[in-house]
Amino acid sequence: MTPIKIPQTQVAAVVPTLGAKPEIRKDVPVKQPSQLAPGECLIKIICTGVCHSDLHTSHGNWPVTAVTPLIGGHEGVGTIVAIGTHTENSPVQVGQRVGIKWLAYSCLNCEQCRTGLEQCRPQARNSGLNVDGTFAQYVVSWVQHVTPIPESLDSQAAASVLCAGLTVYRALKYSGARIGNWVVLPGAGGGLGHLAVQYAVAMGMRVVAIDTGADKRDLCLELGAEKWIDFKETQDIVSAIKEACDGQGAHCAVVTTATSAGYAQAIDYLRPGGSLMVVGLPGSAKLESSIFWTVLKSISILGSYVGNRQDTVEALEIAAAGKVVVKYRLKSLSQLQEVYDGLAEGKIAGRIVLDVSQ
Amino acid sequence: MTPIKIPQTQVAAVVPTLGAKPEIRKDVPVKQPSQLAPGECLIKIICTGVCHSDLHTSHGNWPVTAVTPLIGGHEGVGTIVAIGTHTENSPVQVGQRVGIKWLAYSCLNCEQCRTGLEQCRPQARNSGLNVDGTFAQYVVSWVQHVTPIPESLDSQAAASVLCAGLTVYRALKYSGARIGNWVVLPGAGGGLGHLAVQYAVAMGMRVVAIDTGADKRDLCLELGAEKWIDFKETQDIVSAIKEACDGQGAHCAVVTTATSAGYAQAIDYLRPGGSLMVVGLPGSAKLESSIFWTVLKSISILGSYVGNRQDTVEALEIAAAGKVVVKYRLKSLSQLQEVYDGLAEGKIAGRIVLDVSQ
Amino acid sequence: MTPIKIPQTQVAAVVPTLGAKPEIRKDVPVKQPSQLAPGECLIKIICTGVCHSDLHTSHGNWPVTAVTPLIGGHEGVGTIVAIGTHTENSPVQVGQRVGIKWLAYSCLNCEQCRTGLEQCRPQARNSGLNVDGTFAQYVVSWVQHVTPIPESLDSQAAASVLCAGLTVYRALKYSGARIGNWVVLPGAGGGLGHLAVQYAVAMGMRVVAIDTGADKRDLCLELGAEKWIDFKETQDIVSAIKEACDGQGAHCAVVTTATSAGYAQAIDYLRPGGSLMVVGLPGSAKLESSIFWTVLKSISILGSYVGNRQDTVEALEIAAAGKVVVKYRLKSLSQLQEVYDGLAEGKIAGRIVLDVSQ
Amino acid sequence: MTPIKIPQTQVAAVVPTLGAKPEIRKDVPVKQPSQLAPGECLIKIICTGVCHSDLHTSHGNWPVTAVTPLIGGHEGVGTIVAIGTHTENSPVQVGQRVGIKWLAYSCLNCEQCRTGLEQCRPQARNSGLNVDGTFAQYVVSWVQHVTPIPESLDSQAAASVLCAGLTVYRALKYSGARIGNWVVLPGAGGGLGHLAVQYAVAMGMRVVAIDTGADKRDLCLELGAEKWIDFKETQDIVSAIKEACDGQGAHCAVVTTATSAGYAQAIDYLRPGGSLMVVGLPGSAKLESSIFWTVLKSISILGSYVGNRQDTVEALEIAAAGKVVVKYRLKSLSQLQEVYDGLAEGKIAGRIVLDVSQ
Repeated sequence: MTPIKIPQTQVAAVVPTLGAKPEIRKDVPVKQPSQLAPGECLIKIICTGVCHSDLHTSHGNWPVTAVTPLIGGHEGVGTIVAIGTHTENSPVQVGQRVGIKWLAYSCLNCEQCRTGLEQCRPQARNSGLNVDGTFAQYVVSWVQHVTPIPESLDSQAAASVLCAGLTVYRALKYSGARIGNWVVLPGAGGGLGHLAVQYAVAMGMRVVAIDTGADKRDLCLELGAEKWIDFKETQDIVSAIKEACDGQGAHCAVVTTATSAGYAQAIDYLRPGGSLMVVGLPGSAKLESSIFWTVLKSISILGSYVGNRQDTVEALEIAAAGKVVVKYRLKSLSQLQEVYDGLAEGKIAGRIVLDVSQ
Repeated sequence: MTPIKIPQTQVAAVVPTLGAKPEIRKDVPVKQPSQLAPGECLIKIICTGVCHSDLHTSHGNWPVTAVTPLIGGHEGVGTIVAIGTHTENSPVQVGQRVGIKWLAYSCLNCEQCRTGLEQCRPQARNSGLNVDGTFAQYVVSWVQHVTPIPESLDSQAAASVLCAGLTVYRALKYSGARIGNWVVLPGAGGGLGHLAVQYAVAMGMRVVAIDTGADKRDLCLELGAEKWIDFKETQDIVSAIKEACDGQGAHCAVVTTATSAGYAQAIDYLRPGGSLMVVGLPGSAKLESSIFWTVLKSISILGSYVGNRQDTVEALEIAAAGKVVVKYRLKSLSQLQEVYDGLAEGKIAGRIVLDVSQ
Repeated sequence: MTPIKIPQTQVAAVVPTLGAKPEIRKDVPVKQPSQLAPGECLIKIICTGVCHSDLHTSHGNWPVTAVTPLIGGHEGVGTIVAIGTHTENSPVQVGQRVGIKWLAYSCLNCEQCRTGLEQCRPQARNSGLNVDGTFAQYVVSWVQHVTPIPESLDSQAAASVLCAGLTVYRALKYSGARIGNWVVLPGAGGGLGHLAVQYAVAMGMRVVAIDTGADKRDLCLELGAEKWIDFKETQDIVSAIKEACDGQGAHCAVVTTATSAGYAQAIDYLRPGGSLMVVGLPGSAKLESSIFWTVLKSISILGSYVGNRQDTVEALEIAAAGKVVVKYRLKSLSQLQEVYDGLAEGKIAGRIVLDVSQ
Repeated sequence: MTPIKIPQTQVAAVVPTLGAKPEIRKDVPVKQPSQLAPGECLIKIICTGVCHSDLHTSHGNWPVTAVTPLIGGHEGVGTIVAIGTHTENSPVQVGQRVGIKWLAYSCLNCEQCRTGLEQCRPQARNSGLNVDGTFAQYVVSWVQHVTPIPESLDSQAAASVLCAGLTVYRALKYSGARIGNWVVLPGAGGGLGHLAVQYAVAMGMRVVAIDTGADKRDLCLELGAEKWIDFKETQDIVSAIKEACDGQGAHCAVVTTATSAGYAQAIDYLRPGGSLMVVGLPGSAKLESSIFWTVLKSISILGSYVGNRQDTVEALEIAAAGKVVVKYRLKSLSQLQEVYDGLAEGKIAGRIVLDVSQ
């Protein structure tokens, strides 16, 4: 194989200090193959998704702090162009197309890593938080953590699966909900929501989609949702959901919102034994669920955080099998600020993927 | 067998209206054997525990309302003196010693009943809430729901297991905690707590007992707790718990308190993947847990409500095997108001059992 | 409601002694409503499936013995025409369409009943084994155990779900297999198999169908199987299955055959951690699986026996939702012997349902 | 730190060809620190257990073949004396005491490794099978797979936990058995058995110990077994076990024997829903369990193979907490053949540990 030519500098979107806007810089140094540590690999990015979390991170909204200057982005797909010398038994090879996700590196040895909770270990390295992310032409990642992309899945779709798809897939997988069970999806027409509808339907669950507007209604029903509730046109959402679910309430809710209300409400519309999957990452909001009813109905409130490596492989395979289709719009890296503005105003429908290949 | 003589009237503690004090009445009618419906049985009470929930119920503090006039009590042990005619295949017999628990009757046929969540069915009949409870000499109950008391267990101990013991046993059983795992028990020296310490130790868990005072400390350590934290003498309880648990936090917490603080705090001292068992039944308090950390640490917040029939059998068998010893003080039915006053003031240590046999 | 007229005698297929052929008798007494015990109900049968187990039972092939004279049949659908007096809180009503399954009655109180294994209790009463079955115009059953049939499901389809569908549904449900997992179904084109294909596909699993002949191949692929292996045309079935499953073997196999070979072979083609669902009920065959490979691959070999009441409700609901279509041929009760001959010779494709309504 | 002096040659027990006896050689080369690959470490062995599997391996009795010349041994404890250069983020350090277990190395990246079944991956490297084992003064192992030994556990006890203890601990952990459940342990007085008794008791299970002779009876009862059955003095073992377990049979059996009989028998004495943990590794024996009863009783037959890294940490911690005491006899490496002879004749009681430190 002829050696791949790696430039010394690259284009990347850099946030100089928390709260500042990302700047498109053309002189960001590229770590050269000879500088890679054992286990590291260099990836030439094809495209990268933009996630609401990127906005949170760059604003310093979270209890965990980002390093600066920060290169964000954690839904990247690219091609491996180099692997560090002295890397033993690499599961991936130069030339292979792989994904970079939120969890960039974990030790694979601590209690969390040994028990399939590697994404939750306190010392995790996260893309676009404490290691450079995918809003760049080249990214350094780790051979044990990048995820091979199935051949039949296009890079843009794969990008959105790597965080949005993975997050809702894991939530459904661990919810205890099974075929025939009612699953409530607030925000079903959105970036995470429309993927959740499809994963749930593919598992045989019955979906109650909650969102607003005719476009989102049509999308949700087309993707297989069985019931639709427009939250702007519905006076008593709890009653509407209960009625939609055989009068007994839902078995499961996957709540991705950043405000307390969505979580408190779920306790009311879930049936006894139901599970509330908590997926949102607001900086400071509280659950505010009724203790009395959580107990009396034996509700399980389960925090679910992106996913581990196995979850990622599964989420991608399901999409590659054609069961989940990502609705995304393609933009360029230079439009990142515009995308952030749209996210902050709640104006983005579906997922945004940035083309980084040019 | 010579027929057992059933009096026409009995002594019982009756709450005339919600908020009123219980009155000891001597002329409460006893349902006669000939009046029992198929499946019903009449039980002559030996003794009954007093639970904080009885106080809540009589005060109308809960979102579910009690009938009045109300006879409270749901930790009763007694002897079956009659079974309704036309009862087919009764699993219990006249003369048998049985327990009456919070769940007095369920249909055994609905989704909750079919899936082992019979205690959570919306139409459940509960002792001392919507059917007459155990603060009486005679109680009508149901042959499918009374629980045989193992021979080696004395009635007074069994009474406390039927609600307090059952509640903490089920919480531990469903917590996912296993041998060697750290379990935090706030209120470890109290009525529920001292039973929780023993069930946890019997399962091989390692207990961090939290309470206050030398008496409770000695009790907890004697019952097998490995670490003791006096919450009045500890500045930073979260740090103290984490340090006690190998520096990494606990695997599980069983929280029985009625205030939000105990639940919010647990999210901080649990390790990633840990479980918070929610057991308290305050009328209106909220969980108030951080959504961010619930997600980031993949915490499971699990409502656990008394227990089903199988849980009850197990909780009693474990106690009967000598692994759990109930600390109780015996009082008479006429002292009920005094006990309520003590509970309201938080002055009751251990469990109170009322002797009803005289 | 005008009282329903119940005849004194009825037509039923009676096996006088084990090993004898069923005789169609017209003078079999009907238990009259006034003779029903509390909890019993009388059902006018519409139709009934015929199961290979009926043949086993009538031949006395099993380690558990049938009573004689025997009325077989345990896949019956009919209408309740009477409920025993003194029946309290019946979950079903006169006029309701219900199903009768293999488990006719259980106590709902023993350890098995309390833990959702009611079908496995040693003293179970089974339709067509130790209580009269559904090869008759009228059957006595129990209100707590008959299963309401969803309105959108026709009686003939429901009949086959009550045993064949239930059996494969529970096996899949408890197999641990999930969306995207490979499930091997030997006999996929048969009575149980074609239902298993559909339940598996509805759960998102990927099906490897094993059977023989172009008709069965077409059926399996049409029902959603992803891979087809004709066992008569395949030299090395184990290799063929492994190759079909990404080269790594299957996650799960649901084996319904009566011979040892199918079970022994599964250990070889399952991947590490895979599960072998054992569903067949041969009188004396042994598993004959390699201990070494069962251990080295950490295979789970799980006996799965029809299903409990909750499983039955779920299996019916999934079929009623249109996800499972039963392929059956309708015959009359008088053709029972002919059906038995066909089953014994292995000549029956799909399920046979007997019309009992005329 | 002054560099540790590593000799060029060492003493090791080498099996030249399968079926030959181990030879104690003094000129076996030691891989020098400079020759270690990234991720490898060199360990100076303190002591090593001898397992029946070592005998199987050296005899070529198994379907998986050992390399030759073979250095056996997979229960080793020693001190790390060197770590390969270019090893990133090693979780262990030079000078640390660690254990070497049967699984010497796995990729930590394939499906099995990602899902906690790393010991079952087809390409696993096993100590004393396809990589040099612990019957030597120095062993090369991998930093991600060696297990730190808790300070309070002596090296000889730790050695036996690393395979025998781990194997029975994992079997109990995954059996589904809980506090108060009856667990049958055939061979309870033996090397694996006496550890199984203690792990089971520590989890709150009730143990039925099966073995023979007064010495083993006394040992089992002293370790906490509740029932004792001498298989030589008991005519009907199945009935005796059922009777011991409340007349209903056991919840679980952990069977370690190499013959089919122990597995077939367990199906008979387990209660419905019970689990048979299959742990033995005979070269060719079959399970030979009744299919009919496996199904009718919904028995789970679960292959359990040593344990993963997390199981190993837990098994050691439980022993370090004083809950499991290993009964071993110390011998020297030169006595290996003598130990093999004893194992082959079934004359070894408890575990044998070889002192390799001199």
